[in-house]
Amino acid sequence: MAEEVPGSLGTSASLALRLGQTIFSSASLVFMCFDVNFYGFTAFCYLVTVMGLVIPWSMTLGLVDAYSVFVKCPVRQPGVMTVIVVGDWVLSFLSLGAACSTASVAHIMMAAQGMCPGKICSRYSLSAAMAFLCWFMSFSSSIFNFWVLPKL
Amino acid sequence: MAEEVPGSLGTSASLALRLGQTIFSSASLVFMCFDVNFYGFTAFCYLVTVMGLVIPWSMTLGLVDAYSVFVKCPVRQPGVMTVIVVGDWVLSFLSLGAACSTASVAHIMMAAQGMCPGKICSRYSLSAAMAFLCWFMSFSSSIFNFWVLPKL
Repeated sequence: MAEEVPGSLGTSASLALRLGQTIFSSASLVFMCFDVNFYGFTAFCYLVTVMGLVIPWSMTLGLVDAYSVFVKCPVRQPGVMTVIVVGDWVLSFLSLGAACSTASVAHIMMAAQGMCPGKICSRYSLSAAMAFLCWFMSFSSSIFNFWVLPKL
Repeated sequence: MAEEVPGSLGTSASLALRLGQTIFSSASLVFMCFDVNFYGFTAFCYLVTVMGLVIPWSMTLGLVDAYSVFVKCPVRQPGVMTVIVVGDWVLSFLSLGAACSTASVAHIMMAAQGMCPGKICSRYSLSAAMAFLCWFMSFSSSIFNFWVLPKL
């Protein structure tokens, strides 16, 4: 049995990270989807798709963490941990890519005249910022879990 | 002494990865800089900056690897490895961000009319593709080195 690393699967720090991921990815999705025109831009569709993948993943793992914390029964099979680390990694890269694409497209639209009716572009930027925060938390989770992995 | 993990610092696989990083990041820089107008777009300036950081980093570590391979004297202090892992990670995230931003801006420019005189946009896309390859190799290096780190 590996010692308890804060932030790895089944600790309260991990539960906090998962909650943060769920909140920020939902916020990103909400900021993007209030506008009905997001599907006109590939980068925005990509962001919506990625966030739609991150939310169920983080919620499921958050439930597993909550179970481990309250029932005091950590799940630590190497196979399960590998799947979680790889999944976290893939999702963190996808959300970083989505955040960067959204930010740069929003920047280009702000620079061009007449592409931002109302305050739509600042909402796109907010959505990108939320996606960045989501990336950071998902990356932290994967680091902590990966640190535990070779010792199992 | 940890056992030899292929791809970690001081192995020939690592030397190959570093060579690949240097080649792809140089290619990305060349595709972008043949056009003199890249500094009109934030995303393209960012790509050039990041590639300008990746090239010296990968070349230096490639030299260290070449030294270790030919002189058979691997450098494996935990402090050095930590610096290398963190640096690789930061650079791989930066290059992923640059690649995504460049790709999405190139895509937007191709969709808009009259923003791509000649074949400039396909050169931007090629540059983004090279940056993606560079990200992938830099990420592989950091994974292999990180795998060794907890065992030191």
